[in-house]
Amino acid sequence: MGVKGALTNLKVLDLTRVLAGPFCTMMLADMGADVIKIEQAGRGDDTRFMGPFQKGESAYYINLNRNKRGMTLNLKDPVGKELFLKMVKKADIVTENFRPGTMEKLGIGYETLKEVNPRIIYAAISGFGHTGPYKMRPGYDIIAQAMSGLMSTTGWPGGEPTRTGTAMGDVLAGLSCAIGILAAVNSRNITGIGQKVDIALVDSAVASLEIINMIYLVEGRVPQRIGNRYESTYPYDSFKASDGSLVIGAANNKLWQSLCQVIGKPELAEAPEYLEVKDRVGKHEELKVIVEEWTMKHTVQEAFDLINKAGIPCAPIMTIDKIVNDPHIAGDREMFVKTNHPIAGELTITGSHIKLSDTPTSIRTHSPLLGQHNAEILEELLGLDIEKVKELEGKGVL
Amino acid sequence: MGVKGALTNLKVLDLTRVLAGPFCTMMLADMGADVIKIEQAGRGDDTRFMGPFQKGESAYYINLNRNKRGMTLNLKDPVGKELFLKMVKKADIVTENFRPGTMEKLGIGYETLKEVNPRIIYAAISGFGHTGPYKMRPGYDIIAQAMSGLMSTTGWPGGEPTRTGTAMGDVLAGLSCAIGILAAVNSRNITGIGQKVDIALVDSAVASLEIINMIYLVEGRVPQRIGNRYESTYPYDSFKASDGSLVIGAANNKLWQSLCQVIGKPELAEAPEYLEVKDRVGKHEELKVIVEEWTMKHTVQEAFDLINKAGIPCAPIMTIDKIVNDPHIAGDREMFVKTNHPIAGELTITGSHIKLSDTPTSIRTHSPLLGQHNAEILEELLGLDIEKVKELEGKGVL
Repeated sequence: MGVKGALTNLKVLDLTRVLAGPFCTMMLADMGADVIKIEQAGRGDDTRFMGPFQKGESAYYINLNRNKRGMTLNLKDPVGKELFLKMVKKADIVTENFRPGTMEKLGIGYETLKEVNPRIIYAAISGFGHTGPYKMRPGYDIIAQAMSGLMSTTGWPGGEPTRTGTAMGDVLAGLSCAIGILAAVNSRNITGIGQKVDIALVDSAVASLEIINMIYLVEGRVPQRIGNRYESTYPYDSFKASDGSLVIGAANNKLWQSLCQVIGKPELAEAPEYLEVKDRVGKHEELKVIVEEWTMKHTVQEAFDLINKAGIPCAPIMTIDKIVNDPHIAGDREMFVKTNHPIAGELTITGSHIKLSDTPTSIRTHSPLLGQHNAEILEELLGLDIEKVKELEGKGVL
Repeated sequence: MGVKGALTNLKVLDLTRVLAGPFCTMMLADMGADVIKIEQAGRGDDTRFMGPFQKGESAYYINLNRNKRGMTLNLKDPVGKELFLKMVKKADIVTENFRPGTMEKLGIGYETLKEVNPRIIYAAISGFGHTGPYKMRPGYDIIAQAMSGLMSTTGWPGGEPTRTGTAMGDVLAGLSCAIGILAAVNSRNITGIGQKVDIALVDSAVASLEIINMIYLVEGRVPQRIGNRYESTYPYDSFKASDGSLVIGAANNKLWQSLCQVIGKPELAEAPEYLEVKDRVGKHEELKVIVEEWTMKHTVQEAFDLINKAGIPCAPIMTIDKIVNDPHIAGDREMFVKTNHPIAGELTITGSHIKLSDTPTSIRTHSPLLGQHNAEILEELLGLDIEKVKELEGKGVL
């Protein structure tokens, strides 16, 4: 690609589909890796058919697959398999998120690939991982959120276990897989050989809960759903204002005392029943009423301005329409970036959150059309000419 | 440390406290990096005072800081600062999660450190990042969950915006920082120089929402709280059983048809009103009633067994007490590991979710006692003898 980035030396053969895997390789591509997305001939990634759509093109796909090159390949065809194995010789990393055993059935499992190229790093994402009694269970995001305990601790007292409003299991696994791959790249620089990275959605979600886990492991108490408040300090919660809600994080004594001033109750700062963090946690119900009495008299913006001016952590509970136009988030932090797609046209997509000073991430190319780079990639990697590529396309190998 | 791992060549000077930063360096340490946790002389990381406690020791701290070595250092003392700068010459990575500008005030900002050691990789985690109008705002996890839109899309129709039941903003930032650091390590192998990694809790949470973001960016529709169901397919939701709840992910037509058999309504498999995914999404309310009529007649275990046997993704909504004893999660996947701490004694902590075949992660040493490795580290890195270390401890430099 010839573009500056932290990972321009790495070539990835990316067999992943849908969300967790493509989210991982999106980050690698944003950092300059040459990610070759290999899609099912004639159909492509399932997300090509998932909304939201712009001019018939999936924005789901466009967002997750920017900066990648695309080719089609029929891995069930012996010629397709042979092409893939030849490409593995030229690659650094292979990624997949099939069910465990699928790659072996295709004859391209890790044991085969490492014989072809001992330097290859093989990264797999699956619901439950490649070992253990549940490994063959299919693992969508909601399964991981349920199995890990994440749902059991999200929501309101007396209410139902609640799914986090994004596919967090997939996102956590995608991030974790990128860490595993880059650690294996570092290790390969020392040992000269690659290895297998085995990331499970469930493991990744379990790891995200470690403070929660420790409560049970040490105290034997099963953590409950406690709404928006926090077990270890108060006021650290959401509060209703006249036109919406905001969150306040007055986590320590000094911030609590400041908050008492802001809400016009300076006498509470010295009140013995609220003096220490543990006192306030114990009295969270009455403190919520006291703070909310004040916040309800203000708009979110008024309350935020007054609390923020006093140096107390607080924030409006933002909705997506505000966030994508926020001067900090969309502006300085470039978390939303305008891009162009040959069919969908102009479109704003999510920026990269990995900010590197010397090799900044960038959005350089739009997501590939199905098979867009077949000829380019096969010539570059295997020296095939355009006639050969057309022949393979005609035979359904590509 | 002499122990096998993917990152044994990397030395980290870790100034991070509380959760996001220590979660990042925990993963690096689990993969074999030599992480030297530098704590405030006389006090240490705030989490040493946060529960849950076992024999007076914080399990919060013990879990997040295993595999790290610990020293104390007073960075406000000129001698302490000089020692730190000498250590930077011998290190690969410096991590911190102070408010932006704090390191500069201490005279050890990135510009200073890179003069001392141009190969240093400097990784900062903050609430809002090191650029932009909000950069000086304090950013606890709840602030990031509110500002990013995560809370606005988690919860129930008609209900309140809901905080995910773990410090997800911190966890996402910790994972993202590890990615940035390892990408910078790769880049340094090519360029010979380090760089700054600037990770924001808010950016990391925004990135986790990208499908949700795209709905607004393409359709102009602000995504709402929709409980446990999913916008793009149905039945993909939680359902009540006689003794709890379970989740079912019958995401496509084939799985829907199988589910109709399991729940004893084979006629629905062919019913035109439920034939396609979009039909079922539109009729999610009545489908929830139909599926729940069946699940309510069974225990979670019975319903799970029948649905799972039919190859349909499903899972009980597990609570922490079940998860830490689960034969797959705690057993084969080793997500909970028994360890020993000299004061707290035997304790189970969270395992690593980054599974590497050739350089497996491991829990080798317990979290450091305050200043435990002062002498060892200062002799190893700077050649100081024990008398000198004792003198520095006496003067409050360590």
